[in-house]
Amino acid sequence: MGGAVDFEQVAAFMRELQERLCARFEALDGAGRFGADEWEREHGGGGRSRVLADGEVFEKIGVNYSSIQGDRLPPAATDERPELAGSRFQASGVSVVAHPQNPHAPTAHCNVRFFVARDAADKPTWWFGGGFDLTPFYPVREDVVAWHRAAHAVCAPYGDEVYSRFKRRCDEYFTLPHRFETRGVGGLFFEDLNEWGFDACFAFVREVADCFADTYAALVEKRAGTAYNKSQKAFQLMRRGRYVEFNLVYDRGTLFGLQSGGRAESVLMSLPPRADWPGGAQFESDGAALAEYLKPRDWLREDA
Amino acid sequence: MGGAVDFEQVAAFMRELQERLCARFEALDGAGRFGADEWEREHGGGGRSRVLADGEVFEKIGVNYSSIQGDRLPPAATDERPELAGSRFQASGVSVVAHPQNPHAPTAHCNVRFFVARDAADKPTWWFGGGFDLTPFYPVREDVVAWHRAAHAVCAPYGDEVYSRFKRRCDEYFTLPHRFETRGVGGLFFEDLNEWGFDACFAFVREVADCFADTYAALVEKRAGTAYNKSQKAFQLMRRGRYVEFNLVYDRGTLFGLQSGGRAESVLMSLPPRADWPGGAQFESDGAALAEYLKPRDWLREDA
Repeated sequence: MGGAVDFEQVAAFMRELQERLCARFEALDGAGRFGADEWEREHGGGGRSRVLADGEVFEKIGVNYSSIQGDRLPPAATDERPELAGSRFQASGVSVVAHPQNPHAPTAHCNVRFFVARDAADKPTWWFGGGFDLTPFYPVREDVVAWHRAAHAVCAPYGDEVYSRFKRRCDEYFTLPHRFETRGVGGLFFEDLNEWGFDACFAFVREVADCFADTYAALVEKRAGTAYNKSQKAFQLMRRGRYVEFNLVYDRGTLFGLQSGGRAESVLMSLPPRADWPGGAQFESDGAALAEYLKPRDWLREDA
Repeated sequence: MGGAVDFEQVAAFMRELQERLCARFEALDGAGRFGADEWEREHGGGGRSRVLADGEVFEKIGVNYSSIQGDRLPPAATDERPELAGSRFQASGVSVVAHPQNPHAPTAHCNVRFFVARDAADKPTWWFGGGFDLTPFYPVREDVVAWHRAAHAVCAPYGDEVYSRFKRRCDEYFTLPHRFETRGVGGLFFEDLNEWGFDACFAFVREVADCFADTYAALVEKRAGTAYNKSQKAFQLMRRGRYVEFNLVYDRGTLFGLQSGGRAESVLMSLPPRADWPGGAQFESDGAALAEYLKPRDWLREDA
């Protein structure tokens, strides 16, 4: 596979990535500060949950780091390798979920993760997973196109079909079947990635994290000052309810966290600070404008 | 089993129950009015969702009625009869979820439902399910004891062990394993009930619905005028987040609704109007006082 597998090296990168992302988003916010909450897991390993709440730009942004080991890989950890469920494993990753104050600034999520599972003969199998995706409330075409162009650029050196494969996987994964819509406008999502060898896969994952930070920070800077009214804030809160529905009903990362005995506070860091499920029909025109964006589409072919 | 099985009779009762409950809670609220939203299901049957939002007493109260039929009973519908999953079925029921404005007035849930499944030879199997449970934010001992005494009284004519069996089942069902707590202080929960014959089971279900309406209305009348401050409202919103977690991650009724192609708006009527997941630790003393109540306990042995 090319390149020796070094779990500790990846874990050290993940820990450093958390600090780097927190410093960057703290600077962008300008007012809020990340707290830090270290935790240890009974069955081995631990993590550090960091949340900035009630900031100037972010209503809540969480950046979680964890590195854990366990005796039994939870079934939610791997889709393509069901035979590994129950193996001894190590896992390390960073997750970011950002919920801005301003409804014109989209919510975004990024995750990078690394797994090593060992069979009874101690033979390791490793893979990376991750990606990023954007959830606008008042989508702007040029922002969505820019987001996907950045995603395409980070994938292109790894193969012509990489972007379209990971983009399609993202659309499939971040879907609310009961609402007949995607969670947002997508981005990249990959699982069970080891086909390029360890060194190239690890490099890709580092680039994905940097691409997310650069692209999302630029987007938030552009939109966080747009004027908004009460009705637009209410629409954002209602749409955040959909975010909660996806994360609690469908998200495999959440299930993995709860199944592997992760701390509920850390696993559920992704939930928005506040969400509404108003009674009765509302927001028909805002909802219709957004719905146009919540079907998979080839954003690279759209004009910015 | 004693008594002929009459699906239409039960469905007519359910429809009338919805109207009766709405009239009663509308009168109690004094200001809000229930909307009505009729829907039909592509694969047969339909329902009527009724929500009162932004009332004087209730921030949101939903009362759903549905009667549906289908070709394949979803697996979530029956715990004890997995062999019936996939059968032709009819189902009728009413669900109530009430989220009061005042954090001193508890949230409550009640559900009654009836199923008939038919095997390939058209042989019917029927059962009732349902119950009610209470989710206080600032629990008052005498209210919790009164709630359980009422639950005991409705069960007592059906057998000495009925209350304790259905009460235990309620504690088991309404649990958030990832939070190490129950959703609230419980009540009654029963599934696959047919052991007393159709007439007695149907009578029990009607009495359960009446008991819920009387006991909960009395409790809300008693507590909806208690003064509260902003911090107590914030604690209620944070605790409502736990309610959302239970309903979306664990609730079989929600899964059944989504699996059977129910309308998302109706299935998710149970979600609170607003819920918070604040970053960082908060509400330590309010949370500690409540936590005392969120372990299964024998409330009939407590002083009121």
